[in-house]
Amino acid sequence: MRRAVCPGSFDPVTNGHLDIVGRASKMFDEVVVAVLINQSKAGLFTVDERLEMLAEVTAPYANVRVDAFQGLLVDFCHANEITAIVKGVRVASDFDYELQMAQMNLGLGGIETLFMPTNPKFSFVSSSLIKEVAKWGGDVSPHVPDLVANRLQERFASGRDPSRN
Amino acid sequence: MRRAVCPGSFDPVTNGHLDIVGRASKMFDEVVVAVLINQSKAGLFTVDERLEMLAEVTAPYANVRVDAFQGLLVDFCHANEITAIVKGVRVASDFDYELQMAQMNLGLGGIETLFMPTNPKFSFVSSSLIKEVAKWGGDVSPHVPDLVANRLQERFASGRDPSRN
Amino acid sequence: MRRAVCPGSFDPVTNGHLDIVGRASKMFDEVVVAVLINQSKAGLFTVDERLEMLAEVTAPYANVRVDAFQGLLVDFCHANEITAIVKGVRVASDFDYELQMAQMNLGLGGIETLFMPTNPKFSFVSSSLIKEVAKWGGDVSPHVPDLVANRLQERFASGRDPSRN
Amino acid sequence: MRRAVCPGSFDPVTNGHLDIVGRASKMFDEVVVAVLINQSKAGLFTVDERLEMLAEVTAPYANVRVDAFQGLLVDFCHANEITAIVKGVRVASDFDYELQMAQMNLGLGGIETLFMPTNPKFSFVSSSLIKEVAKWGGDVSPHVPDLVANRLQERFASGRDPSRN
Amino acid sequence: MRRAVCPGSFDPVTNGHLDIVGRASKMFDEVVVAVLINQSKAGLFTVDERLEMLAEVTAPYANVRVDAFQGLLVDFCHANEITAIVKGVRVASDFDYELQMAQMNLGLGGIETLFMPTNPKFSFVSSSLIKEVAKWGGDVSPHVPDLVANRLQERFASGRDPSRN
Amino acid sequence: MRRAVCPGSFDPVTNGHLDIVGRASKMFDEVVVAVLINQSKAGLFTVDERLEMLAEVTAPYANVRVDAFQGLLVDFCHANEITAIVKGVRVASDFDYELQMAQMNLGLGGIETLFMPTNPKFSFVSSSLIKEVAKWGGDVSPHVPDLVANRLQERFASGRDPSRN
Repeated sequence: MRRAVCPGSFDPVTNGHLDIVGRASKMFDEVVVAVLINQSKAGLFTVDERLEMLAEVTAPYANVRVDAFQGLLVDFCHANEITAIVKGVRVASDFDYELQMAQMNLGLGGIETLFMPTNPKFSFVSSSLIKEVAKWGGDVSPHVPDLVANRLQERFASGRDPSRN
Repeated sequence: MRRAVCPGSFDPVTNGHLDIVGRASKMFDEVVVAVLINQSKAGLFTVDERLEMLAEVTAPYANVRVDAFQGLLVDFCHANEITAIVKGVRVASDFDYELQMAQMNLGLGGIETLFMPTNPKFSFVSSSLIKEVAKWGGDVSPHVPDLVANRLQERFASGRDPSRN
Repeated sequence: MRRAVCPGSFDPVTNGHLDIVGRASKMFDEVVVAVLINQSKAGLFTVDERLEMLAEVTAPYANVRVDAFQGLLVDFCHANEITAIVKGVRVASDFDYELQMAQMNLGLGGIETLFMPTNPKFSFVSSSLIKEVAKWGGDVSPHVPDLVANRLQERFASGRDPSRN
Repeated sequence: MRRAVCPGSFDPVTNGHLDIVGRASKMFDEVVVAVLINQSKAGLFTVDERLEMLAEVTAPYANVRVDAFQGLLVDFCHANEITAIVKGVRVASDFDYELQMAQMNLGLGGIETLFMPTNPKFSFVSSSLIKEVAKWGGDVSPHVPDLVANRLQERFASGRDPSRN
Repeated sequence: MRRAVCPGSFDPVTNGHLDIVGRASKMFDEVVVAVLINQSKAGLFTVDERLEMLAEVTAPYANVRVDAFQGLLVDFCHANEITAIVKGVRVASDFDYELQMAQMNLGLGGIETLFMPTNPKFSFVSSSLIKEVAKWGGDVSPHVPDLVANRLQERFASGRDPSRN
Repeated sequence: MRRAVCPGSFDPVTNGHLDIVGRASKMFDEVVVAVLINQSKAGLFTVDERLEMLAEVTAPYANVRVDAFQGLLVDFCHANEITAIVKGVRVASDFDYELQMAQMNLGLGGIETLFMPTNPKFSFVSSSLIKEVAKWGGDVSPHVPDLVANRLQERFASGRDPSRN
């Protein structure tokens, strides 16, 4: 069995993420979407909220499951018998940093990283930009699943301080 | 009438900014220099101080006015009947991020972004580098208007904690 | 009157080019699409064929006209009372070269260059890639106007040696 | 069965290529190393010579076979029931061009491209640089298989005009 | 006498840093490794700890000494009769920022910056990545001197909150 | 004695080259400006013409001499007891290719490459662009020494086919 991981913050998941997950699911027997738990940086959504949204939007893919991890990605891979990391790459400037991480993960644990080009129509979509637009009432519905658009609207409509993010 | 906006933090305005504003003023009927109000990040100068400096240094350009905005730039554009965003680009590595913003602004509100190459002699000048140099008493006078050089000197000579920036 | 030029080889015009021309036509009183005549490099289509295709696909834009030029772009601009060069930029790596040309054109003749981000859905479309795909019978219809798709098909179906390009 | 292709000119194969092929062979049931036949550009080695060298150096990998193709890579993929293209990426500046090709191949034929980071110790090795060094008698043995180093030495020692490449 | 400086945070020194220092020591009569004191950003190690580690690992180089500085690098250079700044460059994306700093330092104080390419085997090693890996118990011994590997292990084994970094 | 080489085509020398040579001459005991003889690519000027122009424009620097070489730069370095290659870098996109060459030269012959940032005012000046501008009668006098400007004017005024370049 070939199992891959799509790691990220997913705060929140975008259509760009979902495109990569869906395409990866055709290339591997199983794909784990893994939310990195970063205790020194609060997100807009909690890790549980992110996992819940991810679970719902990846439900159509039978061989995709969601999980969360803390620490080194290679340790998560070993514990879950994952042999490859799959990452979307939107633009070349993402790449120098990603190459550095990929080399480290290969050296640390023998885990390969495969980069897939993001669909161009999602090439300008990032979670942080989506949050900034949603915070000010802009329409993010072309860029995220409906579920996420609704959650963003609720979150920013409520009294929670959006400046936290 | 064709009206453009030059958005930015302008904390403080540099000769590089002023070069772009002056050149844009020849290409549009009116240019609005718009200071982005970012409540989660304090600047060295207050928004009012930045506007005051901008007003003074752009005074020679009859069709340039200054303003401040909060929220989405496209909303500011719509409210002010602005059809184009003009941004200086110094180096290629600025560009991937700027393209992302430009695509989002085009999608959100039909507002075009035009990138103008910064004059090479200002290509290594940024507000943050200027502040770092001025903080330690370095000579920034070749890179900012005299007014700004004086203000920087006053600011760092006074007791205000420069580490805030 | 504000007149801009969109220069290029246009061998052949793609939907990416057309997107830029159409958007520029809204920002200027007149836009000249100018084919660079390069005597040391034969194209797939002659300059006349390129002009004919350009004229047909830009016909819907009342304020766009097509022309050809040889020599320095700044001389063409001066002769045609053009004050700005408009170029589409697809990716950051286009940019270092384009900045160099822009600085030279500004220095040589006081002509400004404005860079517009290409629509992401055309970000991977270039004339040379289109020709390579069409040469081997691939479907280029999503990436070029119908007229151009037909001309490419005719050209490569005929006995003409495609290796010329 | 999951079958991938590693396409290229392989004129000649380097240790960098071989590193990617070997790593890809662990991730797919079969890997086809496919030499692109480019009739408008002569190589240092003929396509047959390149295939022969590739066959020898990939012999240790039971699930790797070599082939040659002309035309569109997506057509080769369809004819060979290949679902993924695997490419090594050495540096970020390779990437803008590669992304363009990847998007086109995905659009033309639904074939995914996966980018694998080249081992850093091969990051400065390219076939063209290897040929330039070997042409002038430099030691390329750390960068290519022994077989290739010998062939290069023979080729440049013989009377054949090295300027052809 | 030609004296150069290798400035940085060195929190902690890596094999990549040490490679640059060692190579620079062959090109200059004296090399000063200078730790930048940044009062607004705490490090994992104190400046004294960093200096101590640097002193130990550079001990084999007779013409290398270590020091710390605050403020403008050009002022440190003038005070120490240093005529050149030597910096390692790992990847092209480091370069736009470094060029900006280099131009400023040349303009401010007539101090040249020389960029040396980092050995490829260290191209993916940075102090921040090393700390992240060590924090979670990953093996950093191939990337830092033994002394540093031990200190990292002690630091993260002790009760000190690693999230501080 | 520390001796460095500034290699290049110098077809023709520009003010950007001269700026690097002059600055390098202050950092080394001797600087050799070395014209690469490329037999497969004719230049606008012959190697002898380039050497003559270089000799004249570098005459003010007592410790600079000019030479030509064919083959590997590292062999030239060894034959001339040169320990460092000095190259100007204008923009980040120059850098990935230059890093590749630098790593190869370090591996082949233990020769270090030092990159110096080009003065921003020359950052958009390249020999090929200068030739293109001069060919069409544009004013290149701000970008090249007077001697070179005159030679370019003579060359393009005479009957020689400029398309050769």
